[in-house]
Amino acid sequence: MAKLYFRYSVMNSGKTTALIQTAYNYEERGMKALVLKPAVDTKGEDAVISRLGIERKVDVLVHPDDSIDVLLSAQPKVSCVLVDEAQFLTPEQVEELFWFAVDADVPVIAYGLRTDFQTHGFPGSTRLLELAHELQELRTVCRCGKKAVLNGRKLNGVFVNEGSQIAIEDQDNIEYEALCAADYKKLVLQSANS
Amino acid sequence: MAKLYFRYSVMNSGKTTALIQTAYNYEERGMKALVLKPAVDTKGEDAVISRLGIERKVDVLVHPDDSIDVLLSAQPKVSCVLVDEAQFLTPEQVEELFWFAVDADVPVIAYGLRTDFQTHGFPGSTRLLELAHELQELRTVCRCGKKAVLNGRKLNGVFVNEGSQIAIEDQDNIEYEALCAADYKKLVLQSANS
Amino acid sequence: MAKLYFRYSVMNSGKTTALIQTAYNYEERGMKALVLKPAVDTKGEDAVISRLGIERKVDVLVHPDDSIDVLLSAQPKVSCVLVDEAQFLTPEQVEELFWFAVDADVPVIAYGLRTDFQTHGFPGSTRLLELAHELQELRTVCRCGKKAVLNGRKLNGVFVNEGSQIAIEDQDNIEYEALCAADYKKLVLQSANS
Amino acid sequence: MAKLYFRYSVMNSGKTTALIQTAYNYEERGMKALVLKPAVDTKGEDAVISRLGIERKVDVLVHPDDSIDVLLSAQPKVSCVLVDEAQFLTPEQVEELFWFAVDADVPVIAYGLRTDFQTHGFPGSTRLLELAHELQELRTVCRCGKKAVLNGRKLNGVFVNEGSQIAIEDQDNIEYEALCAADYKKLVLQSANS
Repeated sequence: MAKLYFRYSVMNSGKTTALIQTAYNYEERGMKALVLKPAVDTKGEDAVISRLGIERKVDVLVHPDDSIDVLLSAQPKVSCVLVDEAQFLTPEQVEELFWFAVDADVPVIAYGLRTDFQTHGFPGSTRLLELAHELQELRTVCRCGKKAVLNGRKLNGVFVNEGSQIAIEDQDNIEYEALCAADYKKLVLQSANS
Repeated sequence: MAKLYFRYSVMNSGKTTALIQTAYNYEERGMKALVLKPAVDTKGEDAVISRLGIERKVDVLVHPDDSIDVLLSAQPKVSCVLVDEAQFLTPEQVEELFWFAVDADVPVIAYGLRTDFQTHGFPGSTRLLELAHELQELRTVCRCGKKAVLNGRKLNGVFVNEGSQIAIEDQDNIEYEALCAADYKKLVLQSANS
Repeated sequence: MAKLYFRYSVMNSGKTTALIQTAYNYEERGMKALVLKPAVDTKGEDAVISRLGIERKVDVLVHPDDSIDVLLSAQPKVSCVLVDEAQFLTPEQVEELFWFAVDADVPVIAYGLRTDFQTHGFPGSTRLLELAHELQELRTVCRCGKKAVLNGRKLNGVFVNEGSQIAIEDQDNIEYEALCAADYKKLVLQSANS
Repeated sequence: MAKLYFRYSVMNSGKTTALIQTAYNYEERGMKALVLKPAVDTKGEDAVISRLGIERKVDVLVHPDDSIDVLLSAQPKVSCVLVDEAQFLTPEQVEELFWFAVDADVPVIAYGLRTDFQTHGFPGSTRLLELAHELQELRTVCRCGKKAVLNGRKLNGVFVNEGSQIAIEDQDNIEYEALCAADYKKLVLQSANS
C-alpha cells in the first residue's frame, strides 16, 4: 500500500530541488513521475524552478475547484505523483491525494510550507500534517546558524507581521526569510512594522 | 535553544509508556521532569497510566482556561516539561509551550494523538503539528500488520463515524482501534453505523 | 516486503521498555511477537527486564554458534521478531535476520547499542548499521541535558577507558553512563583511569 | 554544541545535489560552507557534479594520509563543513570530523554511501555510522518502485558480485544500480557473473 508523504519546510530550503531530484530518480529508472502544482502559485507558470537554476515542466496545474481524482484519471498510469507548493492545495484535494495513494497504490510526495509568515498553517498544509502517512522535514538554517522553523515576510525590505496569507515572493516587493524562533521573535514580533 | 517536540501517534501505541520512560531517564540523571496533563482527560485522574501497568503522578493538571505561563512560573526550575494527551491542550496553550521552550531554554515534549476518529485534528494537536520544532512519530500496527495511521471508534463494539470529537476510552462503552487507511475505509467509512 | 529495523541507542535509554511495548502492541491485536535475546547477555536470564520494572519472557535465547534460520524455522508463524541486546548478535546472524525479513515478509525489530564504551561498534551492531532497512534512534539525555551519543563505563564508580568490550552492568562493579561527546571527552578521555 | 551528520544512501539518490543545495542555503544567508572531497574519488576532479547537471567547486581535496585537523586549521572560519563521497574518508578522518564538530562548534554534514556492491561498509562509512550524532537517510527507489537499500555493480552491463571494493562509475565500464533487497538477491546473488 503506497503512502502520502508530506516533505515540509520553511521558505527557501530547497523543496523544488528535492522534487526535481526525485522526479529524475524515478525517470532514470524508466518510471514516470507526474508533477502537479497549484495554479495559485504563479511563479514559473507551468514549470517548477529551483533557486539552483534547474527546472522541470509541470504536468498538471491544479485549480482550487479541481477534483484531483478527475485530473489524475485523465493521465496515463504513473509510478509516483509529486506536488510542488502543496500548501496551496485545498483540504479536499489533500484528502483525494491521500486516498489516491492508498487506493491506486501510487506514492504521492507533497512538498510544501508548513506555516505562513504569521506562524499559521495554510489550509492545505494543515490537512497534510493531519493526514500524510509520513511527515518528513527538509531542513535549512536561520541566519544565526540554528535550524529555521518559522517564515518571516519582508515588504520593501522590512519585516512585517500583517498582510494577506498568500503573497508570492519576488512580486509586490515581497521577500521571505526563514528564521529560528528566537530570531523570529526579535526581528518580526518585537520589531516589525504592523 | 531548547525545542518543542510533538511525539504524535494513533491510539494505543504506547505514548504514556514513552512519557514515563523519558521522565525516568531525566530523573535517573538527577534532573527534574515536570508532567502536565489536560484536565479534560479524566482517565487516571491525577496520574498517567500506561497500558503496560506502569504509572506516574501528574504534577500539573491543565484546564482549558489556564495559562501555561502562570502554571509553569509557579513551579521550581525543571529540566524538561512532558505533556500527556497533548491533543487536549488549547492552541493558545501550545503557543505558550513553544515560546516557553525557546525563552526558558527548557525542552518540552508533548505526547498526543494526531487526529480524532473522523481523521480531523484536535485544535491542540493541529497547533502542535504547525509549531513544534520536531515532529516525531510513535508507530504501531494495524490489525493487518501494516502501520496504523487513523483511529477508529467503536460504540458498544461497533465502528461508528459520527459523534462528538472527545469521548474517553473505557467510558460510555467507547473503544478505539488504530487502523491503516485501507482498513479504516473498509471498517469505518464503508461499514460503520452512522 | 517486510524490513529489518535497527532501533539503536546509548545505554539506559529505554530500549527494553520500547521492545516490551512493541510486543504488547502486536499481541493486543491478536498477533504473535517472538522475542529473541543473545545468550551472552546474562542479565535477566530468560527474561528481558526494563529499568521501569516491567518484564517479558524471552522466547528464544541465541548463542553465537546458532543459526537464526534454524531457530526461526522451529517456531510457529509469527507477526514480528523482536531482538533485545542486538549488539551481541554475530554479523552472520544479522545477515540472516535481514534476509528473513525480506524472504518471510515478517518485520524484524532489533534493539541495541550502537557502540561500546570506547566508541567502537560491536560486530553485531556495526552489521546492523550497515544492513538494516531503517535506522531509528531511541534518544536519551546526558547529565548536562544534551542528547547522549556515547557510553562511558565506570569500574567501582570511576570512569575507565580500557577493558574488554563486553562487561554486563551490575556485575563486577561495572556501571555505564550515557554521555554527550563533550562530557565523554572531559570525563572519560581526559580523566579516566586507564 | 554542533553535530556530525551522516546523510547516507545508496548510489544515484541525489547526494551531491543535496550537498550543493545545503551549501547554497548557507551562502545565501551570508555564511561560508566549506566543501571537502576525498581525492580517491577522481570523478569531477576538483568539483562535485550532480547528475542533474549542477556543480560546485571543491574547497579541499582530502588524501588518505591527510589530517583533517591540519587541513581545517589552514582554512578561514566557516559556518559548516560539507563532505561529498564521505565513504572514502579513513576512520581516523571521520573521528577528526566528529571532534571538530564538537570542539569547534561547527556542523559537519557528510554525504556518502552506506555500503559497497557486496553489502559491506567502507571503512569511512562504517565509522560514520558508529559515530555520527545524527544518521539521516536520503532515499531513492529500486526499479520495482520499492525503497532501494543495496548497490548492485555492473561490469560491461552485467551484474557482478566479485571485484575490488572501490571502482568509480563511468570508468572501466562500471555502472551501479541501487536495488531493493529482493531484487538484489535475484539480480546479483542468484544471477551475477562471479
